[in-house]
Amino acid sequence: MVTRQEDFSKWYLQTIQQADLMDYSPVRGCMIFKPNGYELWEHIQANFDKRFKEEGVRNAYFPMLIPESFFTKEKDHIEGFAPELPWVTEAAGEKLEERLALRPTSETMIGHAYSKWINSYRDLPLMLNQWANVFRWEKRTLPFLRTSEFLWQEGHTAHATGEEALDRTMRMLQVYKEVIEDVLAVPVFEGEKTPSERFAGAMNTFSVEAMMQDGKAVQAGTSHYLGTKFAEAFDIKYLNSNNEHVHAFTTSWGVSTRLIGSLIMVHSDDQGLVLPPKIAPQQVVFIPVGPWQKNPAIMEQINEWNQALQAKGVRTIIDDSDNRPGFKFNEWELRGAPLRIEVGPRDLENKQAILKARDLSEKETVAADQVVDRVLAELDIMQSRLFDRAKAMYQENMYTNINTLEELEAHIADCEAQGKPAGFVLAGWDGTEASEDLIKERTGFTTRNIPFDHAYGQKDTCIVTGKPAKETVWLARAY
Amino acid sequence: MVTRQEDFSKWYLQTIQQADLMDYSPVRGCMIFKPNGYELWEHIQANFDKRFKEEGVRNAYFPMLIPESFFTKEKDHIEGFAPELPWVTEAAGEKLEERLALRPTSETMIGHAYSKWINSYRDLPLMLNQWANVFRWEKRTLPFLRTSEFLWQEGHTAHATGEEALDRTMRMLQVYKEVIEDVLAVPVFEGEKTPSERFAGAMNTFSVEAMMQDGKAVQAGTSHYLGTKFAEAFDIKYLNSNNEHVHAFTTSWGVSTRLIGSLIMVHSDDQGLVLPPKIAPQQVVFIPVGPWQKNPAIMEQINEWNQALQAKGVRTIIDDSDNRPGFKFNEWELRGAPLRIEVGPRDLENKQAILKARDLSEKETVAADQVVDRVLAELDIMQSRLFDRAKAMYQENMYTNINTLEELEAHIADCEAQGKPAGFVLAGWDGTEASEDLIKERTGFTTRNIPFDHAYGQKDTCIVTGKPAKETVWLARAY
Repeated sequence: MVTRQEDFSKWYLQTIQQADLMDYSPVRGCMIFKPNGYELWEHIQANFDKRFKEEGVRNAYFPMLIPESFFTKEKDHIEGFAPELPWVTEAAGEKLEERLALRPTSETMIGHAYSKWINSYRDLPLMLNQWANVFRWEKRTLPFLRTSEFLWQEGHTAHATGEEALDRTMRMLQVYKEVIEDVLAVPVFEGEKTPSERFAGAMNTFSVEAMMQDGKAVQAGTSHYLGTKFAEAFDIKYLNSNNEHVHAFTTSWGVSTRLIGSLIMVHSDDQGLVLPPKIAPQQVVFIPVGPWQKNPAIMEQINEWNQALQAKGVRTIIDDSDNRPGFKFNEWELRGAPLRIEVGPRDLENKQAILKARDLSEKETVAADQVVDRVLAELDIMQSRLFDRAKAMYQENMYTNINTLEELEAHIADCEAQGKPAGFVLAGWDGTEASEDLIKERTGFTTRNIPFDHAYGQKDTCIVTGKPAKETVWLARAY
Repeated sequence: MVTRQEDFSKWYLQTIQQADLMDYSPVRGCMIFKPNGYELWEHIQANFDKRFKEEGVRNAYFPMLIPESFFTKEKDHIEGFAPELPWVTEAAGEKLEERLALRPTSETMIGHAYSKWINSYRDLPLMLNQWANVFRWEKRTLPFLRTSEFLWQEGHTAHATGEEALDRTMRMLQVYKEVIEDVLAVPVFEGEKTPSERFAGAMNTFSVEAMMQDGKAVQAGTSHYLGTKFAEAFDIKYLNSNNEHVHAFTTSWGVSTRLIGSLIMVHSDDQGLVLPPKIAPQQVVFIPVGPWQKNPAIMEQINEWNQALQAKGVRTIIDDSDNRPGFKFNEWELRGAPLRIEVGPRDLENKQAILKARDLSEKETVAADQVVDRVLAELDIMQSRLFDRAKAMYQENMYTNINTLEELEAHIADCEAQGKPAGFVLAGWDGTEASEDLIKERTGFTTRNIPFDHAYGQKDTCIVTGKPAKETVWLARAY
């Protein structure tokens, strides 16, 4: 068993294997989502889907295969995605006249549809989302975080004005922040991507970035303001109230199964998966201990609590398998069940149960008539505790006093020597791609995003050139 | 506006267009599921998913791309699917060493995984399902019913014994029957497919078949007993209690977005979509009539009922758009909302509302204090009424007294002359593919399935050869 400290990458792979979340497949970079892993996605999906619908976004489904000619309509878009596309060239025994790409994202297909569906200002705003599989042929892959096929949602909206479209772009970023922080208990850094890190074809890309326990970043969600670029490429026009045909303004935004990877890298520990209660497939596991098979009162007591909790909407499970309690404890720790309740003959006698929260080392004795209330309360408390703990970890690994590339290099060397994460570094940036390239070349750090506010400070000079800083940016290594 | 009687195919396309369920796409045979259409799928999905989970089946997700070598492992399977496969041959600018098929179904990919995951009898049964897009490159396509890309679920189970696997095969067919009849209000004929109509690679295929209003059949769901054929091809073995490595027995079963097509063809009428309440995205639509904008008490009354119904879990919508009531009535009829409630100044005065069920011509006046209860009751009654109506339509179009091919031909000619459906015909069959071929050649009818019981009678002689019948089968034209 390797620890996070010893080798974070190995620890990650070990953790997802031992929790039985995934398996590799014979197709390069494509993974199998096993039931334990897919269940996490089902809960993530349900939470986002509910929020999207509250925002007035409706679901739809668009064809997966995209004609090559669609990609070439938006120059930046094809340039950005061409290197990663798989192509269907034959079907039903015949060579196709035009190659069909496996969608890496659907702006082009949806742009084509919107151009047919949008005619008047009465058709706007049009706000659709789809849950789908997408393909980006990756060279180096990592389960959940970077795979050739992955699952995601992509929202696509069209609006009458740029202002309204930009508002929607920002609003969906807030929805991402809310769900990721509230449900996944993963704090995020929100801000705008630099031009070189923008989505291919976007005017502006905004992101929420999460910090893993090794200090590296995961781009957890992105929201793009596309201006009229795709509307021009696909001829999405509407008749405005002045009777003029004008281009609509569009947005797109997505989160993917990467979220599973970041969820794990933020919360889990050397004993296995740690899951926030709101996302855990099983929130409470009951484990009878001692000679419980001979003492039916134990299972009667467990069944009573189990029913009471299920009636309150808690996702529970009773592990009444033949394995020994120690084996079960370990198994459910590896799988990240938030709360464990042990009940044995002595507990029955003392009218109590033993409660163990996955993230705490101490067990707690709870009076029998308090078990249901205590569990309900602890699920809430644990959810906040995991968020607060992640927030504290972020604080520890954020650096705001680094002002030159040399200082950044020294900081990284220092962290490596001490075996601690180099984390997120707040830096001044002169706004040039040359500076970004140099930062990356010398340190492996990339610009994550430009924070919306200056809560963590503002830099006057560029970390590379020493010239006046155009922006203050977060730098980090990233997955 | 074409009627069902005038041209059923045109009527179907008109109905789905006017309900705004779908659009065509630039990729051959691939359709767009617009929000109104996709919502139907979301409700179908939710109902099946719940039932699968009750059966102990868990969801997972497997890669979409299947190496060509996988297909060639099961001879019948590749023969059956080869003519319909699209292939990825290039990715990221390079030609692939091996072609990758877009999955038409996942027995091969999942068989490969199961061979790794199943080692001991303790690993059995293994019961997984996936919700996914699949591809079958069709020559002639029809929205929802036959498209090159479609959405479905595919369940795959592995068992220690053939008996248990066969039980599971039959059990899932029953789950299909239950949900399709209970939720979609579509009665089904259950039975076994003839060998020539089996799933490629199956030992036995069982189906539930539905009858459309034009008398043609839609295969609504299939469940396959695969014996050890895929276990042998993919080396799925387990150590039994005698310490021997033996092959597992597998099953697979699926329903798809075809269900949307059959739902429409069974219930809808010349005024547009008719949806059973259990599947309808909006079950009740409130429409204020008269000068309601000047009379705020109308919307207050509507809001009160609306909230009371939503609190009872009813899916409601208030159409407070600026359109005229007649326009709204028509729109919601086209879209198939089961119940419409009209409220105007006179209704307010008389303490009443006007209730209109989509499938009845009469309107009903309901006392204000009875509206909530009456709506709840009517949703149930309408659900049964649609099922019963479909059942009656089936009865009218089932023929059990046809004994020779000549009689079948005469029957078809007679129905055509009278402008009525030729329907389902119960026939004796000698068990040969030659007879099936001849029936098809002469009449366009195909064997649908062999009923499990003889509730509709049993035939002694083959409809083609006059020889002793081996089986009694349902014949029909099919989508």
